[in-house]
Amino acid sequence: MAGTKVGIIMGSDSDLLIMKQAADILDEFGIGYEVTISSAHRLPQATVEYALSAEKRGLEVIIAGAGAAAHLPGIIAAHTILPVIGVPIKSAALGGVDALYSIVQMPKGIPVATMAIDGAKNAGILAAQILALQDPELRKKLNKFKETMAYEVQQKGEKLKELGIEAYLKRIGKEKMEVK
Amino acid sequence: MAGTKVGIIMGSDSDLLIMKQAADILDEFGIGYEVTISSAHRLPQATVEYALSAEKRGLEVIIAGAGAAAHLPGIIAAHTILPVIGVPIKSAALGGVDALYSIVQMPKGIPVATMAIDGAKNAGILAAQILALQDPELRKKLNKFKETMAYEVQQKGEKLKELGIEAYLKRIGKEKMEVK
Amino acid sequence: MAGTKVGIIMGSDSDLLIMKQAADILDEFGIGYEVTISSAHRLPQATVEYALSAEKRGLEVIIAGAGAAAHLPGIIAAHTILPVIGVPIKSAALGGVDALYSIVQMPKGIPVATMAIDGAKNAGILAAQILALQDPELRKKLNKFKETMAYEVQQKGEKLKELGIEAYLKRIGKEKMEVK
Amino acid sequence: MAGTKVGIIMGSDSDLLIMKQAADILDEFGIGYEVTISSAHRLPQATVEYALSAEKRGLEVIIAGAGAAAHLPGIIAAHTILPVIGVPIKSAALGGVDALYSIVQMPKGIPVATMAIDGAKNAGILAAQILALQDPELRKKLNKFKETMAYEVQQKGEKLKELGIEAYLKRIGKEKMEVK
Amino acid sequence: MAGTKVGIIMGSDSDLLIMKQAADILDEFGIGYEVTISSAHRLPQATVEYALSAEKRGLEVIIAGAGAAAHLPGIIAAHTILPVIGVPIKSAALGGVDALYSIVQMPKGIPVATMAIDGAKNAGILAAQILALQDPELRKKLNKFKETMAYEVQQKGEKLKELGIEAYLKRIGKEKMEVK
Amino acid sequence: MAGTKVGIIMGSDSDLLIMKQAADILDEFGIGYEVTISSAHRLPQATVEYALSAEKRGLEVIIAGAGAAAHLPGIIAAHTILPVIGVPIKSAALGGVDALYSIVQMPKGIPVATMAIDGAKNAGILAAQILALQDPELRKKLNKFKETMAYEVQQKGEKLKELGIEAYLKRIGKEKMEVK
Amino acid sequence: MAGTKVGIIMGSDSDLLIMKQAADILDEFGIGYEVTISSAHRLPQATVEYALSAEKRGLEVIIAGAGAAAHLPGIIAAHTILPVIGVPIKSAALGGVDALYSIVQMPKGIPVATMAIDGAKNAGILAAQILALQDPELRKKLNKFKETMAYEVQQKGEKLKELGIEAYLKRIGKEKMEVK
Amino acid sequence: MAGTKVGIIMGSDSDLLIMKQAADILDEFGIGYEVTISSAHRLPQATVEYALSAEKRGLEVIIAGAGAAAHLPGIIAAHTILPVIGVPIKSAALGGVDALYSIVQMPKGIPVATMAIDGAKNAGILAAQILALQDPELRKKLNKFKETMAYEVQQKGEKLKELGIEAYLKRIGKEKMEVK
Repeated sequence: MAGTKVGIIMGSDSDLLIMKQAADILDEFGIGYEVTISSAHRLPQATVEYALSAEKRGLEVIIAGAGAAAHLPGIIAAHTILPVIGVPIKSAALGGVDALYSIVQMPKGIPVATMAIDGAKNAGILAAQILALQDPELRKKLNKFKETMAYEVQQKGEKLKELGIEAYLKRIGKEKMEVK
Repeated sequence: MAGTKVGIIMGSDSDLLIMKQAADILDEFGIGYEVTISSAHRLPQATVEYALSAEKRGLEVIIAGAGAAAHLPGIIAAHTILPVIGVPIKSAALGGVDALYSIVQMPKGIPVATMAIDGAKNAGILAAQILALQDPELRKKLNKFKETMAYEVQQKGEKLKELGIEAYLKRIGKEKMEVK
Repeated sequence: MAGTKVGIIMGSDSDLLIMKQAADILDEFGIGYEVTISSAHRLPQATVEYALSAEKRGLEVIIAGAGAAAHLPGIIAAHTILPVIGVPIKSAALGGVDALYSIVQMPKGIPVATMAIDGAKNAGILAAQILALQDPELRKKLNKFKETMAYEVQQKGEKLKELGIEAYLKRIGKEKMEVK
Repeated sequence: MAGTKVGIIMGSDSDLLIMKQAADILDEFGIGYEVTISSAHRLPQATVEYALSAEKRGLEVIIAGAGAAAHLPGIIAAHTILPVIGVPIKSAALGGVDALYSIVQMPKGIPVATMAIDGAKNAGILAAQILALQDPELRKKLNKFKETMAYEVQQKGEKLKELGIEAYLKRIGKEKMEVK
Repeated sequence: MAGTKVGIIMGSDSDLLIMKQAADILDEFGIGYEVTISSAHRLPQATVEYALSAEKRGLEVIIAGAGAAAHLPGIIAAHTILPVIGVPIKSAALGGVDALYSIVQMPKGIPVATMAIDGAKNAGILAAQILALQDPELRKKLNKFKETMAYEVQQKGEKLKELGIEAYLKRIGKEKMEVK
Repeated sequence: MAGTKVGIIMGSDSDLLIMKQAADILDEFGIGYEVTISSAHRLPQATVEYALSAEKRGLEVIIAGAGAAAHLPGIIAAHTILPVIGVPIKSAALGGVDALYSIVQMPKGIPVATMAIDGAKNAGILAAQILALQDPELRKKLNKFKETMAYEVQQKGEKLKELGIEAYLKRIGKEKMEVK
Repeated sequence: MAGTKVGIIMGSDSDLLIMKQAADILDEFGIGYEVTISSAHRLPQATVEYALSAEKRGLEVIIAGAGAAAHLPGIIAAHTILPVIGVPIKSAALGGVDALYSIVQMPKGIPVATMAIDGAKNAGILAAQILALQDPELRKKLNKFKETMAYEVQQKGEKLKELGIEAYLKRIGKEKMEVK
Repeated sequence: MAGTKVGIIMGSDSDLLIMKQAADILDEFGIGYEVTISSAHRLPQATVEYALSAEKRGLEVIIAGAGAAAHLPGIIAAHTILPVIGVPIKSAALGGVDALYSIVQMPKGIPVATMAIDGAKNAGILAAQILALQDPELRKKLNKFKETMAYEVQQKGEKLKELGIEAYLKRIGKEKMEVK
C-alpha cells in the first residue's frame, strides 16, 4: 500500500503520547499516515481546511483525538465524507467522560466512529480494517494480527498454568498490590 | 437601546421552544436580538460565517443553545471575541449531561459562559447584565427585575402563611402528587 | 452497487424500530443490506457463525445494535476483521449509559466504532462512508446528502427569520412546553 | 473436598493480582480450583470451549474477572448452565463503572452473579457458599470464617477502646492523612 | 425436587410486581419457594430472624429485592452462609443506581450475588443454576430452557427475514416510535 | 409540646407538595411548625433574616427543601447554629443529583443534615428525633411510630402469605407492569 | 456537660483517621463521646445491640461512618429513635458515591442525617448543634466557633490583600501546581 | 484601562493556585482586579457586603471560584446585577462534579456564567471579552491573543511534522506513558 491513507489529528501535543499508539499500529500494518496538531477552537480555520482538503490529498480515514469538550472529531466530520474515528482523551477533572460524551453523542447526519477513552490503538486498527476492504494484503495482515493476539493470550494462560499464580506474578513484576 | 445587540442561535428547531425563553426576557428588557437556526455540524460554513461577522453586524453577545454533542457554542466562541453564552439542551438519552459537559468543558483560551440545562431564560438575563455595563437604563431595569422577583417570592410566602398548605396547593392546582 | 454489503444485527426485536433507521438510510443510498436478530447471550453459536462467515458472504460492514450489557457488537468484532459499528440502545434503567460503556470501552485489539445512544441512522451513514471509499457514485450521494442536510437547516433558519418565533413554533406544532 | 470445583478465569494477566484474592480464599477453604487467562475478544473460541466443557470437566462454579467492556463473564454464562460469578475490575478511565455495568446488566435468561468492583475475595466466598450446599464440612468452615471475621472486628473495637484513637492509629501506621 | 428451597424476600410490596418474575421462573422450573415482605429498616428483627433461621428451615438460596438504600440483601447475607442473590429495584429519583451500588459494593467477607436493575427473573434462574448442582433433573430443565431461549431468538430472526422490517414491526405492534 | 419548634422553608412553591410531607408527619407527632417560601437567590436578605432570627423566634430545628443548585439549606445553616435538615428536590434535568450534591457536600464548619431526594417525610421524623431528646412524651410517640411501621410491614407480609402473589397484587391494584 | 453523649461508630479501622475528625471537634466543644468499631455485616448482632442499648446508655446522638455499601448508619437508625448522623467514607473504586447513595437514600420512616463524603468534622458539629438545644453553654461555644471561623477566613482575605497572590502562595507552601 | 474592574473572589485559600490563572490573564490584558478570600458559609455577611457594594466600588465583572457545595458564585449573583463568572474547583471526593452542578444549575432569574472545572483562565478571558465591549484597545488585545494562540498551535503542528513523533515527544519531555 503506497501513499498516505490515514490522517491522525489531535487538539494538543498533550494528547500525542496517547495518539502515538494509533501511529504505531499503522506502522505495524505498513499503512502510510500523517500526524497533525490542530484545534477546533484555537486554530479553527486550519482545522476546517484540513478536513475539506483531506479527500483530495488522498486520505481515506481520519483519526481525531481530543479531550474535555473534544469538538475536534465532530468538526472534522462536519467537513468531510471520509470516515472519522474519534478518540476521547482522559483529562484531569472528569476522567474522560466529558470527551466521550462530546465525541459519541453526535447528531443525526454526522457520524463519528468513537473508540474507548484513550483508545488510540483501536483507532489505528479500525482504520486498517476499513482500508483492508480494498486491500487483500492488509486483510491477511489483520487476520495474522488477530491470530497473534489470540496466541499471546493463550501463551499467557499456559504460562500461568505452568508457573502458578505466585510465580507468574513475580515474573510480570506485579506481586504487590499498589496501595490505593 | 437601539439596534440588534444579541444573537440567539440554536442547532435545531427542536431547541426553539426552550430558546424562546431567552428571546422573551430580552423582549421584556427591550433589548434587540435576532434568532437563527444553524448547526456546527450540518451547516458549518454558515455557522462560522455567522460568528466571524457577528461583531461587524453590531452584535455584542451571542447566546447559543445545543443538545447532545452540543458543539455549537464552542464553535461560535472559536470564531469571535464576543462573549458567548451556552445553553445545554436536555436530550432524550442522557438528560442533558452530554450537552452540559460538551459546552462547559471548553479548553483554555476559548470560554463559553455556560447556563443550567435548558437555562435559556438565564442566558437572556446574563446578556442583559453584560449589556447593562454600558447602559444605565438597562441597569435600572435589571434592578427592578430583581426587586419584582423578590417581591413575588415574598408574596407567595405570605399567601402560603395566610392560606395554609392545603388551600395553597389547591390554589396553584398541585394538590396531588403525580405517581412517578 | 450490487449485492448485500452491510449486515444489520441486533440482540432483540425490541431494538428493531431504532435499528430500522440504519436500514432506511442504507435504502436511501441504494446500499444492499440484510437484517438479523441474534444474541450474544441467547443464541451465541449462531452469532459467532454470523460473524465468522460475514466476510465470505460478501458483507463489508456490520452494524450491531444492543442494549444493557450490550455484548453483541464486541462479540461480532471478536470474530471478524470487518469494521463493526456499534449502536447502544437506550434501556429502561440506566438510560443507555450501560450499553454505551459496554460497547465503547473495548479492549486493545478489537475496535467497535461506537455511535450515539440510539444512533442507528449515523451507523448507516458511517457504513456508507466506508463503502464509498471504493465507490465514486456513493461518494457523490454522500456529498449530495450533506448538501441537502445543510440546505434544510438553512431553510429552517430562513423560515424562522420570516415567520418569527411564535408563528414558527405554531407551524411545527410545538407551541407549548410539555410539563415535565 | 476433592477435585477441581471452581474455575477462575480472567481476560488479562493485569487482572491476576486482584483475581488472586479469589484463589487465596478458596485455598483457605480447601476448595480445588484452576486458574485461566482467556479473553472473550482476543481468544474467543477457546473461551467458548472453556465454558462449554466446564461442566464435563467437573467444574461447579466459574469466577470470571474482567475490566472495561468486560464481556468475559457474560460470554461464559452464555455457554454454560453453571453459576457464573462476575468480578468487575477497576480500570484507568472510568474507575470500574464500565465493567460493573457490562457485567451486571445482563439480559433476561443469562444471569451473572456480580460482585463489587475488584471484589474477587467475595467471589471466592460466594463460590464456597454455593458448594457448601452439598458439603457439611464446608458449611462448618464458612460458619467458622464468619465467626472469625466477627471476632476480629470485635477485637479491633476493644483495642480501640483500650488504646484510644491516637495510639490505635499509630499502631496501625495510619496516623497521618495522605494529602489528596 | 420437594420442599421449599428458595426464599424470596423484598423490602416493600411496591417491589412485588418485579419480584414476581423470580417466583414465576421458579414455578416454571418446579422449584419450591416462599415469598416474604420484610424490611431491614422497618422490621429489622424479623428480618434478622428470617436470615438466621433460613438454613434450618431448609432454604438453600435467598433472593432479596430492594430499592433506594437497599440494605436488605446485605443484611440477610450478614446473618447466613446461604448464597444471597440481590435484585436492585429501580426507584423514582436515581433510576436504580442507588440500589445497585448499595447491593453490589458489599465489603470483603459478605458477598451478595447482584443482578441487573429489576433483574428478578435472572435471580430465579441463578437460584435454579445453584440448586441444579445437586439435581440432574433440574440441570436438564436448565439446558432445555437455554435451548428454548435460543430457539425463540432464532425464530424471530427467521420471521424478520421472511416478513421484512415493516411487516415485522406491524406484527409486534411497534411500528411507531414513541415521542420521547 | 407547645409553640412552634420547627421551621419548614423552601425555595419555591413548586416544592410545596413534597415539603408537605414534613408538615404532615410533624402534625402526626403534634409538633408545632411554620411553613415559609423564601429563596437564597431571589429573596436573599429575607432568607438571611429568617435564619438569623430563627433561634430567637423559638425555632429549634429548620427543614429546608430546594432543587437544582439548591443553596437554601446551606445558606440557612451559614446564619444559625440550629440544626438544619436539607431536602434535595428532584428536578427536571438531573433527577435530583444536582440538588443532592449541592446540599450534602457542605464545607467543614457548616453541616446540613441531608435527607434522600424528595425525602421530606424523613426530615420531619429527624426533627422529631432531635426534639425528643428533651421531650419524653415525644420519645414515646417515636417508639410507637416505629412499632406501627414494623407492624404494618409484618401485616403486609402475612397478607401476602395468605393471599399469594397474584391475589395480593390485585388487592393493591398493581397487577400489571407499566410499559416503560 | 457531663457524661458520654455521643457515640461514634465505624465499620472498619480504615475509617478511623477520617472519623477522628468528629472526635476532635467534640473534644474541642467539651462533649463526651465513645468510639467503637463494629460492622453491620461482619459483626451484626453487636451492632444491633449497640443501637438498641444506645439510649439507655445515655447516648443522645450517634455518628456512624462507613464506606462502599455503607449499611452501618441505616442499620443503627433502624434500631433506635436517637438522631443518627451518617458519614460516607471515600473508597477506592467509586470515590464515595456508593457510600453516599447507600447512606442518604434511606426509605421513609428511618432518617439518617447525611454529611459530605469524608465529612466527619461536620458530623461532630451537627451533634453539638443538636445537643446545644438543651445546653446554653454549648450554644455559646457554637456561636464562638462560628465567629472564629469567620474571623479566620477574614484574616486570610486580609493577608492575601497585604501580600499579593505570589507571596501568599509561597507562605502557604502551594506555589506550584501539582502535575495531574 | 484604569481602575479595578474585576473582582476575583474564592471560598478558601486552597483555591488560590487555580484562581491565580484568572489573575494572570487579566494582568496579561492589563485589566485591573482585586483578589479576595471570603466564604458564602463561613463569612456570609462579608460576602453579601462584597456583592452588594461591588457595583459602587467600580467592579464590572466578578469571578467567583468554589469547590464542593460551591455556593459562593450563586450567592454573589443573588446580590448584584453585575455579570458573575463561576469557576468550579475540583475537590477530593467527586472530582469537581459537585461544584459544577452547584454552580451551573442556578434557578431562573439569577445566572452564573459557568466555566470548566478548574477553568479560571477562561474566567479571566471571558471577563476581558465582556469589558472589551466598551474598550476598543482591549478588543485588539483579545484579537491578538486569539491570533497568538492559533499561531502557537500551528507552530506545534509544524514542529511535529518536522521532528516526527518520537523526537517531538522527547523535546516536550513526555516520551513515556505514566503507569496509571
